[in-house]
Amino acid sequence: MRINSLVATLMTTGLMTFTAISPSFCLPRVTSQVSLTRKNSILIKKNNPKDSLPNSLFTVGIGGGLIGGLYDGFYPYKSLKEHGNFGLGAPDKLDGEIIVFEGKVYKAQHTGKTVPVEDQDMTSFAMVNFFRAERTLTPPKGLNKTAFFHYLDSVLTNVNGMYAIHIKGKFKTMKTRAFPPVKAHQHTPLAEMLNLQQFFNYKDCQGDLIGYRLPYFMDNTNISGYHFHYLSDQKDNGGHVIDLLTDDIVIEIDTLDSYTIQPPATKDFEHFDFKKNREEDIKSVERGGKN
Amino acid sequence: MRINSLVATLMTTGLMTFTAISPSFCLPRVTSQVSLTRKNSILIKKNNPKDSLPNSLFTVGIGGGLIGGLYDGFYPYKSLKEHGNFGLGAPDKLDGEIIVFEGKVYKAQHTGKTVPVEDQDMTSFAMVNFFRAERTLTPPKGLNKTAFFHYLDSVLTNVNGMYAIHIKGKFKTMKTRAFPPVKAHQHTPLAEMLNLQQFFNYKDCQGDLIGYRLPYFMDNTNISGYHFHYLSDQKDNGGHVIDLLTDDIVIEIDTLDSYTIQPPATKDFEHFDFKKNREEDIKSVERGGKN
Repeated sequence: MRINSLVATLMTTGLMTFTAISPSFCLPRVTSQVSLTRKNSILIKKNNPKDSLPNSLFTVGIGGGLIGGLYDGFYPYKSLKEHGNFGLGAPDKLDGEIIVFEGKVYKAQHTGKTVPVEDQDMTSFAMVNFFRAERTLTPPKGLNKTAFFHYLDSVLTNVNGMYAIHIKGKFKTMKTRAFPPVKAHQHTPLAEMLNLQQFFNYKDCQGDLIGYRLPYFMDNTNISGYHFHYLSDQKDNGGHVIDLLTDDIVIEIDTLDSYTIQPPATKDFEHFDFKKNREEDIKSVERGGKN
Repeated sequence: MRINSLVATLMTTGLMTFTAISPSFCLPRVTSQVSLTRKNSILIKKNNPKDSLPNSLFTVGIGGGLIGGLYDGFYPYKSLKEHGNFGLGAPDKLDGEIIVFEGKVYKAQHTGKTVPVEDQDMTSFAMVNFFRAERTLTPPKGLNKTAFFHYLDSVLTNVNGMYAIHIKGKFKTMKTRAFPPVKAHQHTPLAEMLNLQQFFNYKDCQGDLIGYRLPYFMDNTNISGYHFHYLSDQKDNGGHVIDLLTDDIVIEIDTLDSYTIQPPATKDFEHFDFKKNREEDIKSVERGGKN
């Protein structure tokens, strides 16, 4: 059993959000109000002038490593922001959930508080890009998570494409989660810490979803399928999205055409076994998952 | 059965070279004559001035896609050379094997001829980097492929590290292979075309091996383990290395710290099924493999 299977299981058991990609799916009785807007990328996109691949996703850390217990931060947010103004990730010691939005980095903690991070603070895994809204969509109201993902599938037609997705608006309900911090050098696999997750249920809230839909072939290094983090308008709460019910929202899509991965330059990473059979971990996730 | 398993099988059946990474292995009765040389990277390395990640591996195409039949070139060598002066790959329509060496791109064809490519010619899959020799090793003579890879394993101690490897020198024997071109839009999986491979056996030859050892977590997108292409001193023959016996050689190592992948922006790629069960393909490789 490889890590990608574990990732899928973690997602379906509530540790991470996930849905199958079925781009041809069209919801019955849902009228899509799609408005396509092509904007001038030169004006909108804030590229790192040093990047030769501007429309690229930049990832630090390996997703399978984080799932397997590599929680120690190794990459400062100051450096991360040089590669993107939009994204998500995990903080040093798994102390909450990271949201990168409009060039600022926030940490949604298990206490329910969301705070800005310091430039010198570290992430153990994060992905960012310079977001350019190349398409703007206005979906119908009242979509639950499944309907919302099916709606996105109906417009993101390349199953092997990489999409950065920004949603702004009102939500009837929003359920997020955040993990409490682990101890220094603690490497308990994430699947064994499901009971530590803290869940938060917000009603009639307003804010932003920051996330991606990534293709299956990126599953070992990133996390395939949909993956969103939430940040409230007041930047005072957020977290990893577990469930939602939309109200008035606007969706912005940025299609990416390449990606870069910078693995950790740490001793823990050097010794991490990417071939390890994690079947037992999956069972414990299935037993211990809260939803 | 996922593509990574197929890749491993293809390698072990002779379609691609492969060996398990066992970094702690030391050959009995082999005295390693290792000389470490740290050079000034500023003087040696020819970086793309636009690259913000200079010590990076750049890949166009997805390895699993090539294995599964995506042979149509989509990325010109002129662009490829902007991302590296050293590397390997596959030409448009699988017409031989690509070697990138000292900033020039060569195609070793199934006819036995090796020729320079044109800038506007296309690759379907290639990986390149700007090579800097950060370590130089002089191994004992007379290593067969297994002993040679074990020797490399004994010095490349990070099993999750990415290493570009250049070998210059004399070889007692060198066995390479190259595929003949497929037809336009032909997507027969590589595993079903093993009988078309052309093998070449060179004796007491002199030239360069250009290659990589990549970690297991890159298996779906690149090809993990060792992977070498050969180019003769006269640049008149070469190909994908199937077997070898070393004579006097010098090994140069360049440790890479990040990698970028640019998937094909083609309709064929959009419709490629990375989840497909390729177990039958593997059986046909096992039946049809020439060695």
